[in-house]
Amino acid sequence: HPRHPSALPAYLLVHNSWYYGLDLTFSIVLLLLALAENPSVDKFQLPVGIHTTLELVSLGVIGVELALKLRWIGWTMILKHKRTMVKGITLFIMVLEAIIVLVRQESHFRVTRALRPIFLVDTRACGAVRRFIRQILQSLPPILDMLVLLMFFVCSYALLGYFLFSNHQTNLYFRTLGDSFVSMFVLLTTANFPDVMMPSYAISKWNAIFFISYISIVLYVLMNLMLAVVYETFTGIEKDKFRKLLLHKRKACQLAFRLLVSKQTPNMVRFKQFHGLMRYYSPRTSQRDIILIFRQLNTSGTGALTEDEFLGIYDAGTLKWRLKDPPDPWFSAAWPPLRIFCRAARTVVTWEYFEHIVYVLIIGNGLAMFIRVLESSVSLEEGAKNFCASWDTYLFLTLFLIEALLRIVGLGWGEYISSGWNFFDLTVTLVALIGSLILLVRPKLTVVVILRPLRLLRLFKLKKRYRDIFGTLVLLSPLMWSTAIVMMVMYYFFAIIGMELFSQYDLRNCCNGTTVEDFYKYSTNSSSGIGYYYLNNFSNLLISGVTLFELTVVNNWFIVMDAYANVAHSYSRIFFMLFYLFTMVVLTIVVASVLEAFRFRIQYKKQTSKRDEEQMLHEE
Amino acid sequence: HPRHPSALPAYLLVHNSWYYGLDLTFSIVLLLLALAENPSVDKFQLPVGIHTTLELVSLGVIGVELALKLRWIGWTMILKHKRTMVKGITLFIMVLEAIIVLVRQESHFRVTRALRPIFLVDTRACGAVRRFIRQILQSLPPILDMLVLLMFFVCSYALLGYFLFSNHQTNLYFRTLGDSFVSMFVLLTTANFPDVMMPSYAISKWNAIFFISYISIVLYVLMNLMLAVVYETFTGIEKDKFRKLLLHKRKACQLAFRLLVSKQTPNMVRFKQFHGLMRYYSPRTSQRDIILIFRQLNTSGTGALTEDEFLGIYDAGTLKWRLKDPPDPWFSAAWPPLRIFCRAARTVVTWEYFEHIVYVLIIGNGLAMFIRVLESSVSLEEGAKNFCASWDTYLFLTLFLIEALLRIVGLGWGEYISSGWNFFDLTVTLVALIGSLILLVRPKLTVVVILRPLRLLRLFKLKKRYRDIFGTLVLLSPLMWSTAIVMMVMYYFFAIIGMELFSQYDLRNCCNGTTVEDFYKYSTNSSSGIGYYYLNNFSNLLISGVTLFELTVVNNWFIVMDAYANVAHSYSRIFFMLFYLFTMVVLTIVVASVLEAFRFRIQYKKQTSKRDEEQMLHEE
Repeated sequence: HPRHPSALPAYLLVHNSWYYGLDLTFSIVLLLLALAENPSVDKFQLPVGIHTTLELVSLGVIGVELALKLRWIGWTMILKHKRTMVKGITLFIMVLEAIIVLVRQESHFRVTRALRPIFLVDTRACGAVRRFIRQILQSLPPILDMLVLLMFFVCSYALLGYFLFSNHQTNLYFRTLGDSFVSMFVLLTTANFPDVMMPSYAISKWNAIFFISYISIVLYVLMNLMLAVVYETFTGIEKDKFRKLLLHKRKACQLAFRLLVSKQTPNMVRFKQFHGLMRYYSPRTSQRDIILIFRQLNTSGTGALTEDEFLGIYDAGTLKWRLKDPPDPWFSAAWPPLRIFCRAARTVVTWEYFEHIVYVLIIGNGLAMFIRVLESSVSLEEGAKNFCASWDTYLFLTLFLIEALLRIVGLGWGEYISSGWNFFDLTVTLVALIGSLILLVRPKLTVVVILRPLRLLRLFKLKKRYRDIFGTLVLLSPLMWSTAIVMMVMYYFFAIIGMELFSQYDLRNCCNGTTVEDFYKYSTNSSSGIGYYYLNNFSNLLISGVTLFELTVVNNWFIVMDAYANVAHSYSRIFFMLFYLFTMVVLTIVVASVLEAFRFRIQYKKQTSKRDEEQMLHEE
Repeated sequence: HPRHPSALPAYLLVHNSWYYGLDLTFSIVLLLLALAENPSVDKFQLPVGIHTTLELVSLGVIGVELALKLRWIGWTMILKHKRTMVKGITLFIMVLEAIIVLVRQESHFRVTRALRPIFLVDTRACGAVRRFIRQILQSLPPILDMLVLLMFFVCSYALLGYFLFSNHQTNLYFRTLGDSFVSMFVLLTTANFPDVMMPSYAISKWNAIFFISYISIVLYVLMNLMLAVVYETFTGIEKDKFRKLLLHKRKACQLAFRLLVSKQTPNMVRFKQFHGLMRYYSPRTSQRDIILIFRQLNTSGTGALTEDEFLGIYDAGTLKWRLKDPPDPWFSAAWPPLRIFCRAARTVVTWEYFEHIVYVLIIGNGLAMFIRVLESSVSLEEGAKNFCASWDTYLFLTLFLIEALLRIVGLGWGEYISSGWNFFDLTVTLVALIGSLILLVRPKLTVVVILRPLRLLRLFKLKKRYRDIFGTLVLLSPLMWSTAIVMMVMYYFFAIIGMELFSQYDLRNCCNGTTVEDFYKYSTNSSSGIGYYYLNNFSNLLISGVTLFELTVVNNWFIVMDAYANVAHSYSRIFFMLFYLFTMVVLTIVVASVLEAFRFRIQYKKQTSKRDEEQMLHEE
């Protein structure tokens, strides 16, 4: 908060949506520049002068904003506030480098571009992302401990593997201690199994014991324990955070209580003071709700709150009150004929078998789809048209539209759309309709076939377990966004480094004489099923992203790694191994958060009453 | 329990270690017969007459034992007790089939051999295995629900993939709807990624979106949710079991209490009655411990137990009592010179820096190993000798032996061996010594190099987190045994079926024109890095086991599946897919149990006092 009147304009400047908007826009522009910089994505290429000027403009705006912020929080804060310091230094280096590029008119080895996401993460919109990153950092020590234990086994087995198999001529996986270590590290991810075993297995079947024992210990025991350790740390951190928040709130309540008591009643807060507090604390709460909250808190019924009663204000403030008698339907004041129609629609919609009829319709739609799939058709386009633009499609779409219309008319738009399931139904129906119309115009666009089966998802609402699962997904969606952004940031970081290091190499026929030779065999007229790996490279930002996604999925990641170890330098393995470790950490924490979110959801549900559950069921 | 005096001999016959031993032996013999039956493991082959006779003998013994058991529990119980009924029917079919084989002198299509593990699981030694299987069955419904949801996405994407990619000539993964489904099912396990994407990725880079979205939804969201659902169900079942056990114990206590009260004190149990109970309930408890338990229970100090106090007997019975003053060391009555030496050893061992010196020694050993590894040597055997039979090895081994000797002499053998870590140290040191001696005699046996690094594991005792991890491993060991046996049973089941179905096929050059062609290319003088997959077959029990292990690891499992789909019948895919689903279920439950065990361990540790922890730390 501003300490000096002179800082007030800067404070007001920093805390408004224009400031935040500019910050976000220009940090995204800065990130997108990597599409246009060499090696660029086709069609996005810009001359060096233009993209560097754009970069300088973006950096300039971010710099000015940083300066404004520093003027408000005080210039000395830059030394104390680590994040701002890092941002400042990065900004300075980047401006310097951009000027150099502008002067020389060509790009040098600019790995610092990998740091650009710092500006994005520092924007106000990414608060949840920063929290998630903090969570990752807090979960890091146990993961590192487990990695040390894992590495002990990897090294021991690498040593043993070297002594056992290095004199087999046909075995390229254990020729040197280094090879042996890499093979064992990759085997940790199972990506080269069973290939790594095969040459020694061909010599003696008993060699399988070496590999089976390794995988059993490292993968099935230690990796599972790693998840357990991370999960335990994660829940511990969450609990601790919750406890601290509770204590913090309690302290705040006590302080507020002391300010609110009057001299006449030094141990009680009366309604007048309480009302004043609520007007300030949450101006949107209606008069009725304030009275209700007060009565809810005042369990002793004395008409004034004691300190203990007052402590419940945070919980009571979040309660929602529902009228015992539902309000009149929206159409009660409408034109009479319309009112009759609406009342009829309402009767139909609230009829107990209405839902059943809808489910029967959905199942019918599913059966029709099934029959359409089995039908043979002349061409693919004909098949797509049969599947999602035939008479039965339109029949069911019309029925679904009528259902939606009845519900909207009967319940009113507000109540209809407040249920996630209704929103889903309407969206899917409309999208499927648009899709089938598009198909009529452009028969080649067969991708729209995915839209018809989506309606079947509604069937999963029938069973409680699926409702729990979808409920967890809703609960998890902020976390998923954060995860997605963290992954994007990581991809960006590694993609820039990957492009700077590897974009000049062509992988076609790169690895003759190595274990991955077959995956890079290329001739213009060949049709080998597996010879496509040369496509997994770092030739531009988007392709690097796909390559990194393949590395994230882990399967066959060593094929890409070995290729670059072969064409570039064997130390480029470090890049790939680090990337693997980073993604493993993030994904393990994601698994832990999903577990925690699901358990939280289930525990929470156990505590809600039957009626609440029915209400939620309806709303979901 | 026997209801009739005439059943008593049978009861005694059934409940003794001879009965259990025979049961276990013959069920293992029955399982091992698969090694000798056609297709047999080399050197184990037996003529049809012999192995069938062996089978009949084993089945006979098991049959007689079943009959004895039935005589005791009553013949009608066979209809009520499902497990016994299944066992009886299987036995009958197997005897019939064995007789047919003996008469025809050749084996027919005997898939029923896959049911042999039933007899093993039914033995008394496998009680924990039966519990684990029950747990799996109870966790099955949520897994099946999740599978249905997964299958919805698999089918939708298979349909979309077919419409998008089936007209690409070079794309063999999506030619028909069936191919498309198989590709998507395999992609669920990531095993064919990125290969499955490559042909369409080569045509348009945007096709990557199809695969990335599929993997993100199915693998990173739904599969994680599956783990969450299974974990929640699993902990729910555990809690429920625990609660039931507690109620059961409470009921038992109440009944016992009513039997123990005397007429004079109808609401109290006096020590005399309590003593009698303990004599019967746990005859090994010493007089001193009984008094201690009684005083522990009698919190009111009245000298007689009320019903509430008596309810704690189960917990009090498991307490262990330690003397406040430690007993005299073992050597206090020994020959005086020895006593002086022992006392000196005890002083050394209990010296606060003794542990530190040992750790320094271990680190020194590690450094010596590291230097030895970096040393170049003429041959592998020379290297192995340098590594684990050189002067520094013997120096450190001697020092470690002296350490162990000092501890044994100072603490006494009983106290020394009661700590798991000491036991580990001694074993590893002795084994390493024996290993280095073996290497001197037979220099080719380089496998012993693994024995030297094992000593480094002791270093992990230094940090609390590792102690937790090793503690969890100890806690988990019964579960791991059960899991291992369940996996073995599953392997046996699938191996027998696999052998019956696939043992006659040769996979060399089997798959020309398919996507897995390269993995089966074979010529006698080739050295292709990946052409070894023909070795993954079902030619005998052990090789089938290795093949199934490869399928369990999941990586590249579809290569084996596709080969058999090609040479045998495309329906053989069902065998492989079912195996995948079975292992996935078992492994998911293993992950859930590891999570639960680790959390239990941590929660339990939080409740133990500092002193207890130190004690445990010492013991582990």
